[in-house]
Amino acid sequence: MLNVGLLGAGRIGTVHARAISSHPGSRLVAVSDVNVDAAGWLAAQHGAKACTTEAILTDPAIDAVLVATSTDTHSDLIEAATAAGKAVICEKPVDLSLERARACLGRTSATGQPVMIGFNRRFDPNFAALKASADTGEIGRPELLSITSFDPAPPPVAYVKVSGGLFRDMMIHDFDMALWLMGTLPETVMAVGSSIIDPAIGAAGDVDTAVVTLRWADGRIAVIKNSRRAVYGYDQRVELLGSEGLLSAGNMLEHTVAKSTAGGVVSAKPEFFFLERYMRAYAAEWAAFVVAVEAGTAVPVTLQDGIDALTLAEAATRSCVTGEAVNVANVLA
Amino acid sequence: MLNVGLLGAGRIGTVHARAISSHPGSRLVAVSDVNVDAAGWLAAQHGAKACTTEAILTDPAIDAVLVATSTDTHSDLIEAATAAGKAVICEKPVDLSLERARACLGRTSATGQPVMIGFNRRFDPNFAALKASADTGEIGRPELLSITSFDPAPPPVAYVKVSGGLFRDMMIHDFDMALWLMGTLPETVMAVGSSIIDPAIGAAGDVDTAVVTLRWADGRIAVIKNSRRAVYGYDQRVELLGSEGLLSAGNMLEHTVAKSTAGGVVSAKPEFFFLERYMRAYAAEWAAFVVAVEAGTAVPVTLQDGIDALTLAEAATRSCVTGEAVNVANVLA
Amino acid sequence: MLNVGLLGAGRIGTVHARAISSHPGSRLVAVSDVNVDAAGWLAAQHGAKACTTEAILTDPAIDAVLVATSTDTHSDLIEAATAAGKAVICEKPVDLSLERARACLGRTSATGQPVMIGFNRRFDPNFAALKASADTGEIGRPELLSITSFDPAPPPVAYVKVSGGLFRDMMIHDFDMALWLMGTLPETVMAVGSSIIDPAIGAAGDVDTAVVTLRWADGRIAVIKNSRRAVYGYDQRVELLGSEGLLSAGNMLEHTVAKSTAGGVVSAKPEFFFLERYMRAYAAEWAAFVVAVEAGTAVPVTLQDGIDALTLAEAATRSCVTGEAVNVANVLA
Amino acid sequence: MLNVGLLGAGRIGTVHARAISSHPGSRLVAVSDVNVDAAGWLAAQHGAKACTTEAILTDPAIDAVLVATSTDTHSDLIEAATAAGKAVICEKPVDLSLERARACLGRTSATGQPVMIGFNRRFDPNFAALKASADTGEIGRPELLSITSFDPAPPPVAYVKVSGGLFRDMMIHDFDMALWLMGTLPETVMAVGSSIIDPAIGAAGDVDTAVVTLRWADGRIAVIKNSRRAVYGYDQRVELLGSEGLLSAGNMLEHTVAKSTAGGVVSAKPEFFFLERYMRAYAAEWAAFVVAVEAGTAVPVTLQDGIDALTLAEAATRSCVTGEAVNVANVLA
Repeated sequence: MLNVGLLGAGRIGTVHARAISSHPGSRLVAVSDVNVDAAGWLAAQHGAKACTTEAILTDPAIDAVLVATSTDTHSDLIEAATAAGKAVICEKPVDLSLERARACLGRTSATGQPVMIGFNRRFDPNFAALKASADTGEIGRPELLSITSFDPAPPPVAYVKVSGGLFRDMMIHDFDMALWLMGTLPETVMAVGSSIIDPAIGAAGDVDTAVVTLRWADGRIAVIKNSRRAVYGYDQRVELLGSEGLLSAGNMLEHTVAKSTAGGVVSAKPEFFFLERYMRAYAAEWAAFVVAVEAGTAVPVTLQDGIDALTLAEAATRSCVTGEAVNVANVLA
Repeated sequence: MLNVGLLGAGRIGTVHARAISSHPGSRLVAVSDVNVDAAGWLAAQHGAKACTTEAILTDPAIDAVLVATSTDTHSDLIEAATAAGKAVICEKPVDLSLERARACLGRTSATGQPVMIGFNRRFDPNFAALKASADTGEIGRPELLSITSFDPAPPPVAYVKVSGGLFRDMMIHDFDMALWLMGTLPETVMAVGSSIIDPAIGAAGDVDTAVVTLRWADGRIAVIKNSRRAVYGYDQRVELLGSEGLLSAGNMLEHTVAKSTAGGVVSAKPEFFFLERYMRAYAAEWAAFVVAVEAGTAVPVTLQDGIDALTLAEAATRSCVTGEAVNVANVLA
Repeated sequence: MLNVGLLGAGRIGTVHARAISSHPGSRLVAVSDVNVDAAGWLAAQHGAKACTTEAILTDPAIDAVLVATSTDTHSDLIEAATAAGKAVICEKPVDLSLERARACLGRTSATGQPVMIGFNRRFDPNFAALKASADTGEIGRPELLSITSFDPAPPPVAYVKVSGGLFRDMMIHDFDMALWLMGTLPETVMAVGSSIIDPAIGAAGDVDTAVVTLRWADGRIAVIKNSRRAVYGYDQRVELLGSEGLLSAGNMLEHTVAKSTAGGVVSAKPEFFFLERYMRAYAAEWAAFVVAVEAGTAVPVTLQDGIDALTLAEAATRSCVTGEAVNVANVLA
Repeated sequence: MLNVGLLGAGRIGTVHARAISSHPGSRLVAVSDVNVDAAGWLAAQHGAKACTTEAILTDPAIDAVLVATSTDTHSDLIEAATAAGKAVICEKPVDLSLERARACLGRTSATGQPVMIGFNRRFDPNFAALKASADTGEIGRPELLSITSFDPAPPPVAYVKVSGGLFRDMMIHDFDMALWLMGTLPETVMAVGSSIIDPAIGAAGDVDTAVVTLRWADGRIAVIKNSRRAVYGYDQRVELLGSEGLLSAGNMLEHTVAKSTAGGVVSAKPEFFFLERYMRAYAAEWAAFVVAVEAGTAVPVTLQDGIDALTLAEAATRSCVTGEAVNVANVLA
């Protein structure tokens, strides 16, 4: 039985608390949050105690820590928790600063504690099936990857201002998806973006609509499309063209009912947002973390994976400003 | 908090145990089974005690009983549990004998205890969405209903022999679906059946493939197709043609990945069987029972509903033998 | 080059004229119709002459005759044309009278002239692909066939009165589809029908909504659903369940555009009616006739096929009245 | 009746010959080709005469000329035909040289003769339905356009060498699609390309896989994906995200049959290549030309449209080499 402390009792912390409690091999024992009431309420829901982060990190009965706090605290908490001998799973992104994230990797590696990054989409049954099929070679050698990732509605501008920008906050998931499916870092990154949905997002120095093209040294190409607003729901699709075929993973729909009338055929929308679409992914992600920690095997999404995705986000941010392809080697240097 | 005793620790009892435990408003406190080990194992999984059925029925701390035992015990247990002051939810069918089921209704009505029958498909999100749309009148007046219901593989012949036959055991769900969507009992029932999948099923006096046509006095028609074997998975679909359109509810698929190669486009199969397809339905069914019991409102699927479905099963069984339409009034008389 | 005379310049004659003219191996040379203006107009469209039926039948330059007149003239014209040494293709049904159709078969067989019946759906690319797949054994042995066949709107009551009834006029196509896919005559026929769409159709002694179940001696079952009104368009689908899988053929849609908005996802309706859906089928049907006549090989749809479909229509008509299964042997006797 | 001369009797000329002949308002009267046999054969098929291009251009009985010759002759023939008083419809691209194409526009404008460019995809029923829906404003203001355009197999390298490159030869269609749907020229063009399918294509100085991103001054973005090889068939899709929804147009499939077995669900591939997919588009394109010429109204695809698409191809070609966004104004200057 894995005893777990949860840092952060917000929306995503609530999702994780349910995954922890529902798993037969883990137990939520403590919750901390800067909002003490939120921590108390969530802890009570799960028969856990509310306490401080320090109390969690120093409690020898706690084996693992899930970091679901605001992004600016991630690196510090990963370092503190691993130093305290805890296994760690941390929400994406590792950090908004690539340099800080790298430093974090250096410090945590020394502890030998497992650190997993929460790129939940790898655990979505649809993307997992696509990856499994690609890995068998059923479509030959991958050549052109296409990722569509639209949110149902833009976040508040106040959030946008502290988010690190669309590439670090939203497209980070898609960068990880591309890296996971393609296996290595690309050579160049080209980005185009606009604030066409909401001028206030532009005024805050960010974009709300963007297309990024990645090119690998061997000629493989990936294109990622992001929009902060798809009024019909959360649109999450992947297509991978290979030398012997195409794999495509589509949206989960709210239901399978179609209504055919004189006006046309109406069917259901995609599931509304990440809480609906990725509910099973969060459970599978947690199960994979428990297996790795209990068995002492490698976690399936590493801190290095988090840094790689952040590297592409950094490159895309630069390219979007300059209008030039950014060489990933220059970002790494 | 509703304290629940579970009678029956088999496959479907296990499903219900999970639904009871996962619901924030109910708690599984006791499990009984003729197989004492099975009861013990399932109880341990949920922090409940294993005991006798009698102990459950006489325990004043237990508010509600879920009956998931073999069909031949359903009527007796419904009567005993309601007499003991418990709210009851019982798996379908009520009984293989229409007469016995009616007697059960008479005795339990007197107790005033709620009795719900487990027609889980009413709680499937797809069929529920179809029903909701039909009820709004969006496709006008219903005229022709079509239900496709195929199992992935036939049960053992030993089970077939005690099942009451395909119409009472398998198509009972579809009869309930037809009654739920159409609202009233039909006037006539015509059935055609074969044992084309397995001659041993025919030797046991049953059919494995059947089509039943229901006709209402106002001219509405429903057709139900059953097969005990669809090798591609559990095929569960409903179509309702109305004066202003068609509603159709399809299968849930294992995933949304399609693979396009020179050989064609391959996509996923329907979810394998009822445990996969109706997992959410079982949870929603249980939630509806809890709401009704706690609020003292009518249960959404009554014992009378169970008897009505059984009435159609009885009529279909007769028609399949005689090759003649059976008047439902004659079955009721 | 096959020189063709067309008898009948109505809606379906117009369709056939285009197929004849567009085929590189045939030429429309003459058209007759009781409406002389209609014949003249259609002939002019295709560089043919308008003349009497007698002139067509006695013209030695005419090789083949296409009969697209009213049903009550079919048998007489088939007999006259074959007696005159013409190859014949005739619209369905052969006749409303089974006895008359059989007599026609006897008389035309003696002439040795090819006679093909216009069951166009066999030439639809979708149903042809389904049949080809079934014939390879890809889904094992067929067990349960399901045919959905809905018209967009009911015909005028005046037409219904002379049509021979839904089973002979509309479902005749589906009977042929069932016979084509299953290969032999079934043993029994059970029919249920209603005039729920338009009471005037019922007053005229016909039904507008019907379900027919066919059962073969070896246990195979087919079910056919007909409605005279599907407001969303012509709904033409076939499903064949076999021991190793399911084949399904769906509708052709007007286009592939989907519109996703906050209100749902709207896609196109099925093609409106038979002229749209079966345009390619009419061309392929004609090409198959030309090949058979030119090569002296058997026509792919025989007069006997027309009689077999009519036999099932006769049985269904009887069953719908009596509420009893009709033994096909009794209709044949 | 429009009398038409066809210049070019190759594959695409053959397609156009059929469209001209099948249209009730036009007649193919003459065909020329550098391959005299090919011209003779095609002319004979349609009851036309084979002759020289000069004979066609000087024949006063010929009203219109369809140019389906090799690209390097397009500008010269457009100029000669309009100078000879003929209406002209010319296959894409206008020219490989933007400068030459502009000169052509200057010379032909003076003649007042209609000149239409053969961007056939505008006449595909699916893309036409998407455009019509977008024009009604049903999805609000367009924000992000995505075009997928994959050929089934790469052309011979010999063809690649004279093609002008993927951007001028293949993506030119997609540039026109983007311009048609968005309405104006974009501000910048960014291109990424590879020769990952066939190194010989790279050795010939071209790419076989490419992604181009267009950005308009108002923030709208379009992304175009091209591959010379999709082994499952011709993949032609468009998606347009707007402020109030998404429009998507998919592929036409070979048929609607699905086969469900234990191994999965197999359905049909997209129609094989442009001759299959765009057969109706070619007929509709021709009909639109006939209407414009006969009525004296503007042709729906102008020579300027051809030049605009070529402008984007030129910009993409440059960007693909430099790795920098190309400002369209610089190409126009």
